Amino acid sequence: MFPEYDVIVVGAGHAGCEAAAAAANLGSKVLLVTMNMQTIAQMSCNPAMGGIAKGQIVREIDAMGGYSGIVTDLSMIQFRMLNLSKGPAMWSPRAQNDRMLFAATWREMLEKTPNVDFYQDMVRSLIIKDGRACGVVTGLGHEIPSKSVVITSGTFLNGIIHIGEKQFGGGRVAEKAATGITEQLVEYGFESDRLKTGTPPRIDGRSLDYSKMEEQKGDEKMVGFSYTETKKPIEQRSCWITYTSQKVHDILKTGFDRSPMYAGRIEGVGPRYCPSIEDKINRFAERERHQLFVEPEGWNTVEIYVNGFSTSLPEEVQYAALRQVPGFENVRIFRPGYAIEYDYFPPTQLNHSLETKLISNLFFAGQINGTTGYEEAACQGLMAGINAHQKAKELDPVILKRSDAYIGVLIDDLISKGTEEPYRMFTSRAEFRTILRQDNADLRLTGLSYQLGLASQERMDKVANKREGVEKIKDILKEISLDPSEADGFLAENNSAPLPQKQKATQILLRPNVSLEGMMAGLPKIKEALTGFTKEIIEQADIQIKYNVYIEKEKELVKRMNQLEDLLIPENFDYNKITSLSNEALQKFKKIKPRTLGQASRISGVNPSDVQILMVYMGR
Amino acid sequence: MFPEYDVIVVGAGHAGCEAAAAAANLGSKVLLVTMNMQTIAQMSCNPAMGGIAKGQIVREIDAMGGYSGIVTDLSMIQFRMLNLSKGPAMWSPRAQNDRMLFAATWREMLEKTPNVDFYQDMVRSLIIKDGRACGVVTGLGHEIPSKSVVITSGTFLNGIIHIGEKQFGGGRVAEKAATGITEQLVEYGFESDRLKTGTPPRIDGRSLDYSKMEEQKGDEKMVGFSYTETKKPIEQRSCWITYTSQKVHDILKTGFDRSPMYAGRIEGVGPRYCPSIEDKINRFAERERHQLFVEPEGWNTVEIYVNGFSTSLPEEVQYAALRQVPGFENVRIFRPGYAIEYDYFPPTQLNHSLETKLISNLFFAGQINGTTGYEEAACQGLMAGINAHQKAKELDPVILKRSDAYIGVLIDDLISKGTEEPYRMFTSRAEFRTILRQDNADLRLTGLSYQLGLASQERMDKVANKREGVEKIKDILKEISLDPSEADGFLAENNSAPLPQKQKATQILLRPNVSLEGMMAGLPKIKEALTGFTKEIIEQADIQIKYNVYIEKEKELVKRMNQLEDLLIPENFDYNKITSLSNEALQKFKKIKPRTLGQASRISGVNPSDVQILMVYMGR
Repeated sequence: MFPEYDVIVVGAGHAGCEAAAAAANLGSKVLLVTMNMQTIAQMSCNPAMGGIAKGQIVREIDAMGGYSGIVTDLSMIQFRMLNLSKGPAMWSPRAQNDRMLFAATWREMLEKTPNVDFYQDMVRSLIIKDGRACGVVTGLGHEIPSKSVVITSGTFLNGIIHIGEKQFGGGRVAEKAATGITEQLVEYGFESDRLKTGTPPRIDGRSLDYSKMEEQKGDEKMVGFSYTETKKPIEQRSCWITYTSQKVHDILKTGFDRSPMYAGRIEGVGPRYCPSIEDKINRFAERERHQLFVEPEGWNTVEIYVNGFSTSLPEEVQYAALRQVPGFENVRIFRPGYAIEYDYFPPTQLNHSLETKLISNLFFAGQINGTTGYEEAACQGLMAGINAHQKAKELDPVILKRSDAYIGVLIDDLISKGTEEPYRMFTSRAEFRTILRQDNADLRLTGLSYQLGLASQERMDKVANKREGVEKIKDILKEISLDPSEADGFLAENNSAPLPQKQKATQILLRPNVSLEGMMAGLPKIKEALTGFTKEIIEQADIQIKYNVYIEKEKELVKRMNQLEDLLIPENFDYNKITSLSNEALQKFKKIKPRTLGQASRISGVNPSDVQILMVYMGR
Repeated sequence: MFPEYDVIVVGAGHAGCEAAAAAANLGSKVLLVTMNMQTIAQMSCNPAMGGIAKGQIVREIDAMGGYSGIVTDLSMIQFRMLNLSKGPAMWSPRAQNDRMLFAATWREMLEKTPNVDFYQDMVRSLIIKDGRACGVVTGLGHEIPSKSVVITSGTFLNGIIHIGEKQFGGGRVAEKAATGITEQLVEYGFESDRLKTGTPPRIDGRSLDYSKMEEQKGDEKMVGFSYTETKKPIEQRSCWITYTSQKVHDILKTGFDRSPMYAGRIEGVGPRYCPSIEDKINRFAERERHQLFVEPEGWNTVEIYVNGFSTSLPEEVQYAALRQVPGFENVRIFRPGYAIEYDYFPPTQLNHSLETKLISNLFFAGQINGTTGYEEAACQGLMAGINAHQKAKELDPVILKRSDAYIGVLIDDLISKGTEEPYRMFTSRAEFRTILRQDNADLRLTGLSYQLGLASQERMDKVANKREGVEKIKDILKEISLDPSEADGFLAENNSAPLPQKQKATQILLRPNVSLEGMMAGLPKIKEALTGFTKEIIEQADIQIKYNVYIEKEKELVKRMNQLEDLLIPENFDYNKITSLSNEALQKFKKIKPRTLGQASRISGVNPSDVQILMVYMGR
C-alpha cells in the first residue's frame, strides 16, 4: 500500500510540519503521519508566535526556507516588535494569530508542497533493523518503510491530562494519547522521563468588561516574520492587560490541596519560565499581583486565551479566582485550564544533527527532546527534517553553530547539557546575541540554506541585494562629509552636541540620538545619497554601522570559540585512558560523547581543567 | 459556576447547533456542551448538503429561521438544482461544501447568537428529578442545571469504529466516544439499540487522473438554500464521476472474510439507502458497476471524498480495489473508510415535540433517534430546540403536520412507525409532495416561525411580498388575453399548437412547453405586464398556475386527512376497554400512544378496521 519513503515524519505539530516541508523541499519523498488530519499544525497553547528570542528563531526558520514565518504572517491578527527601546539585539517580533487560520494555512502550504504525502493513523512502533530506523508501524498495522524517521510526538506520548483531582489519558483535551513508541525505545536502551506543561482556561470574550483593562494595540507598522513578501492584514485586533490580586491568589490557594501538582499526582517537571499561576503565587509569594494578557483567539471568534493563567487547579477554583480579576467579574469559561504530562527523551541521547545516538536514521524534534514552545519545536523540526533528508540521501549532516543562529544554541544546549525541565530559549542563552539578531537572520542563514537547495533563488537574490545595498550605503556614508553648518541644526533637534569640525556621515551616525532614518529626514545631502534604498536595507546599514564595535568584538570571540569547535574529538575516543579527568567529567564525556572540544567545554559539570586535560591528551 | 439555563444542548453537530440557535433566538438562555470546541458542526461524512428530499428539508429549516441554509450557502463550492427535468415537486437543491469553512461558519454564527453559551466537556449523565430532566452532569463532575435538555449525541454514544478486523472506541476516528447517558436512560426504562453507519476513504486528489473521469460542473445559476440574501461564490469547483467494475468488486470480495459486517462483529443495522460498497455488490450482485462521485473537500485542499465507496473492509483491500477504478490507478489514501456503531433510542419513545415520553423536558434529535443524514439531523435539532424552549417557558409545543413540511413527515414517521435501520428522507415518504416543494418552503413555514418569534420581520416581509406578487401576477394573467396573431409565432417556436381563438394568458401558460419566463421572452405584452417582478416571484407564479390542478387536489386530501388529525385521542386513553381491537393494534396503541386518530392510522401494523373501531369508540 505504501512505497518506501525517504523520510517519515511522525506527528504534524510545529516540529513535524517544518520537518516534512524541509525534507520534501530538499527532494525527499516524505510521508507525514498524524493521528488526525483535522488537527494539523494546531496551536495547542497560546495563539501567538515569536516573542523575545523566540521571534529571532522564527526569523531564522524563515531565512532557512522553513514555513513558520510565512504561516505566521498570513494568519496574524496583531504584530508587535518587542524591545524596540533596547538595542537591536533585543528586538523581537511577536504576533497574535488566528488559531484556526494558522492551522489551515499550514495545512494548505503542506498540501502544496509536492513531495509531502499524508496519512492519518497513530504510529505505534518503529521498524528497526541492525540498529537503524527504517520505517514505522501504525495502529492499523501498516508497516511503512522509509530511509529515515523523524519523531515529533509533542505531548502525545502516554499523555495524561490533569484538572484538579480528575485525570485522564489524552494528547490534548478531547484527543487520544499515543502509545507504544516509548516502550519500544526503552527496550532499545533509551532513557525516557516525564515532563509536564499546562494551559490556561479559554473563556467567552462576550463575558468580559474591557473598560477595566489596559488595551494593548499592535504596531502601526507590521514588520512580520518572513523575509519574503507576505500579505499582511490591514487591521489588527487588540489584546488587553489585567492583573491578579491578593484576593485572586487567596482563592487559588484554597484549591492547592486538590492540585495535581501539590498532591504529587503529577511527576513531570513543568516549564520554569512559563509557570502555572499556582506556581507563580507559590514561588513569588511576595508579589501582590501578576499580569494577565487577554488574547483573542482569532478574527471571527469570541474565544479568549488568558495568557499568564495556566493552571491545573479544580475548575471551580479557576472560575472563582478568575471572577476576582478586574474585567472578569462575569466571566464564563469555555474550556478549563489543564496540565498535561508526557514522555520525553533526555536530549543528551542525540547528536548535533538531532539523530539519536542509539539508533541511526532516527531523529527527534520538539517536545520529545524536552523543549517547550512552538518556535523551539519548529526549528528543531526544520533541522531534523533537513538532516533526515541528508541521511536518507547519504549526505553530510547540516549543523548550525552557536555563532550561526539561536537554533544552533538551542540544539547545542540540548545535546550537551540535556534538560530536566522544559527548555525554552532566551537571549541570555546565546553568547553571541549581538550577532544573532532578528534583522540579519537572512544574511546569516539563507546562503547555507540556498547551498543545500532549500532556500529559493528568489530568496537568495533578495539577500544578495540586501547585503550589497548595505555595503553600498556604508561606502557612501564614508564618502560624505558634513560641515557644522549643514549638520548642527539637525543635531540640535536631536539633542546632540554641535559638530566640532567637518565630519564623515558615518561618524555622525555613531552618536546615540542619531539614526540613519533620522539623518535622511533631517539632512538633505544624506537623503539624496540614499534615495532608492529600501527601508530594510537602510535599517540594516544603520545597525551594522552603529553597533560595529560590539559586532566586531563578538566576531573575534566567535573566531576564538570556533578554534575549539574545530578540534574534533574522534568518534570512538576512549576517555578511560585519561586518568586525570574528574569523575564527573569522565562520566559525562562517556555519556554525551561531545563532538568537539568546544562542546565538551559546555557540558554542565565539566571544568576548564577537564577540557585542558582533554586537549592535552588529544594533542598527543 | 453555572447559572440555571433554560435549555442545555448536548452535542454540537448539525442537530445540536440548530437546536441551540433556535432555542436561543426564541429567547432561551442556552448552553451548548460539546466534547471539543474545535469540532463544532463537523461534516463527519460527505462534504455536501441537500439533495433529493434533503434539499427540501434544508429550505424548510431556512424558512423556519434555522441556520443550515445560510451556512451551506456561505461555504458551498458547488451548487446544483437536481431533477430540473422533472416537475417542481422533485426539484432539489444540492451543494458541495468546504468542510472546514462549513464548520467555521457555523461556529461563527453561533458565537454571534447572543443567548448561546458554550462549554467543552463530555456529558456523562442527566440530572433527573421527579421524572423531569433538569440539567446535566459533565465528565469533570459539574452539575449544570436547566429547564430542558436536548440530546444530540450523533455517533458518539458508546461509539465503536471498525476497519477490517480492527476495532476501537471512538465517536469519530481520532475522537473519543461518549459514555454514561445510555446506561442511565436504560435504567429509567428506555429501550436502546445499536445502529451502524460508515464513511468512505479520503484520498489525495494529487494522485488522481481526472482525464479518465466525467466532469460534473455546478449550475450556472447558484440558487442556494437560504431565502435570505447570502453571499454566493463567484467560481465553483467541479466534482467528477467514475465507476467501479467487476474487477473492483472481485477485489473487494477478497476482504469479505475479514469484514466486520460479514464476520458478525458489527451488530448494528446500517443505512439501507446509503449502503457500503460491500453491501452494494452483495445486494445488487447483478450490477457490473457502481457510480462513484469524486468530491473535493474544499477550496484550498487536495483532499477528496470518494462518495459511493463507504466501506469498513481492511484498508489494504480498500486500497487494492480503489486502484482498479479508472483515474485511481495511482491513488494515495489519506484516511481509510470505516464503519461506526453507536447507540440510538427507537423513536417511538418520543412525542411529536421530540420530547421523550418517559422523562419530561428531555428532547432527542438526530442520529440518537435512528436517522441518518445531516439534513434529517438538523431539522430535528431545530424542532427539538424550539420545543425545548417552549417547554422551558411553559408554552405549547410546536408541531409541524405532514402536510406542512417534510420535517413533519419525518418526525411523524419516526414516532409513529419507529425505525430499525437508519432513516433517511425521500420524496416518496411524503404523501403531499406537490405541496411540499423547495420553492415554497418560505410560504409554508415562515409565517409560523414569525409568530413564534423565530423568523425575523425582514424574512416575514420578504415572504409577504412574494405571496402578494404571486397573487398579482395571477390576476394580471387572468386579465390579459392574446389573439392568435399575437401568440401563434411564439407558440410555434415552442412546439405548441396555434390558438383556436383569443385566449387568456393564464390558459396559455397551462400548455406543456410554455413557461412564464418563456412567455415573457416571446410575448411583449406579457413582458410589459410583468416587468418589475423578481425572478423568484415569477417562477413561483408559474409553478402555482401550471400545477394548480394537482395542488388543489392535494389540498383537498390534506383537508380530509386533517379532519382525522383534528380528532385528538385523550392523553390517558384506556385502550384496554376496546375489546374488538386486533392484538397488534392494541399493543402498538398502548406503546406509541398516538396523539390523533390520523397518527393512529399511520402506525405500522394498524389496519383501517382498527382505526374505525377506535373512532367509533371515541365517538361515544
